[in-house]
Amino acid sequence: MGLDIGATKTLGVRLDDDGRVLEQVREPTEPGPEGILRTAAQVVTDLGSAASIGLGIPGLVDPERGAVKHAVNLGVDGEWVPLRAELEQRLGVSVAVENDVNVATLGAVALSGIRDLVYLSIGTGLAAGLVLDGTLRRGATGAAGEIGHVPIDPSGALCQCGQRGCLETVASGRALAEAWPSGDEPPAQALFAAAAAGDVKAIAVRDRFAAGVADAVRTLCLSVDPTTIVLGGGVAHLGAPLVEAVADALRAQAAASPFLTSLDLAARIRAVPADQPVAAIGAALLGRP
Amino acid sequence: MGLDIGATKTLGVRLDDDGRVLEQVREPTEPGPEGILRTAAQVVTDLGSAASIGLGIPGLVDPERGAVKHAVNLGVDGEWVPLRAELEQRLGVSVAVENDVNVATLGAVALSGIRDLVYLSIGTGLAAGLVLDGTLRRGATGAAGEIGHVPIDPSGALCQCGQRGCLETVASGRALAEAWPSGDEPPAQALFAAAAAGDVKAIAVRDRFAAGVADAVRTLCLSVDPTTIVLGGGVAHLGAPLVEAVADALRAQAAASPFLTSLDLAARIRAVPADQPVAAIGAALLGRP
Repeated sequence: MGLDIGATKTLGVRLDDDGRVLEQVREPTEPGPEGILRTAAQVVTDLGSAASIGLGIPGLVDPERGAVKHAVNLGVDGEWVPLRAELEQRLGVSVAVENDVNVATLGAVALSGIRDLVYLSIGTGLAAGLVLDGTLRRGATGAAGEIGHVPIDPSGALCQCGQRGCLETVASGRALAEAWPSGDEPPAQALFAAAAAGDVKAIAVRDRFAAGVADAVRTLCLSVDPTTIVLGGGVAHLGAPLVEAVADALRAQAAASPFLTSLDLAARIRAVPADQPVAAIGAALLGRP
Repeated sequence: MGLDIGATKTLGVRLDDDGRVLEQVREPTEPGPEGILRTAAQVVTDLGSAASIGLGIPGLVDPERGAVKHAVNLGVDGEWVPLRAELEQRLGVSVAVENDVNVATLGAVALSGIRDLVYLSIGTGLAAGLVLDGTLRRGATGAAGEIGHVPIDPSGALCQCGQRGCLETVASGRALAEAWPSGDEPPAQALFAAAAAGDVKAIAVRDRFAAGVADAVRTLCLSVDPTTIVLGGGVAHLGAPLVEAVADALRAQAAASPFLTSLDLAARIRAVPADQPVAAIGAALLGRP
């Protein structure tokens, strides 16, 4: 069983032995430590019994201790919340806890069958998960893949992290929504639709966003050189038009550089399947003994 | 036995079973494919007999085939030179071939005992080697660690690779020599000495160089989050003053960012031991069956 605990909803799946989704449920997430625990227990009850449970959750996760902190949108701040211990006690089954981007990366590996990939999560923020030669790379302090806070422009916008010109200030859902306010409609969809319809300003905003994503792809490829970069997160629901815009940006960046051209980064990107609960699937696989 | 084949000299070492250097020789490198082979054979003859040989060489290396190309400073261009096959035939012993930065990284791991580190080679150019959890990361196309060609400033200088504002245009021996021409003296030593003596212009040039190295360290840490970054390459002969300048730059970058401060990147850097032939040692270890 796998749970993807998000700020608004918690999505749960039950997988068969081959990793296929048997059942899927969702519940609104109650905020705060006790709310998260109650929501998770409810999703598990909805799904029936499980041999093991994996959880993906935003924030700083200590997988060894099964604890989370700094999940601000979930009402969890500076204190470690011992999710695993609490849930194992309530549910009587083994629980594994991991960062939401990392479980989505494991899900992307399982769905694609590619065991060497980087998952670039373009959600409200920007972060990557790395599975290198089959192994999830967390890093010495869990900061592997924190690519959103690599500055790429000394005269760029101030980032929430305190630095200036971070990738996240250009290539994130938040940056996109600020550059293209759209009322009720999801900003990414509104922007790409307007650009596709020929709106000159929308084309410029879309291309600047895509160039920022391409910057992140290039930085990751020149660091770890994965076979594949999977674009995920909320913005990736755009699917093919996003991949196309980013591939165009990658080709434009490589135009003056034989070295970059030889790496053919545009051919390495794809969008995560939009109809699959990738993070919940990855969480379920993580939880397996 | 390990050989570090450089543009001007080839350095060879013979190690004992515990990886200690028993003997060390150097020969001027003859350019061109046949020159490299002759030089390597000569160094091996100087050192006596060996059970296995490892080679580190600049350029694009295919370790599977034991071949190198694009080692421009060695007179090797677009054609693959089958170093392993040729040397195995001449010497009758197994030979392994790897990129020079990668063997230096293996050497840094052996000398430090740290099995999760990034080796940042600040030579004429800028490139990194990655050993993650004990395993050398080459990447899908051998481009892992090509951090020198990550652009970090849209209005930066044009890079030899064709892009603009690459890390290498600031944080490399070439960039340093251009910013601080010094005649016969090594530019890095001349610059750091002038800065230490209070020369205001030298301090500015040194600090800009150190900030560029710090940018590379930050980019690598936010990608793979290693426990340690070892500064190597010609410029790292500066030793402690280089580490100090880069640590100062990392602290300055983190000053406005609690997130970056929490990663404590300044505490992760060290210089490679200046008195050890790190690349030749790594090459020898690579060659071991």
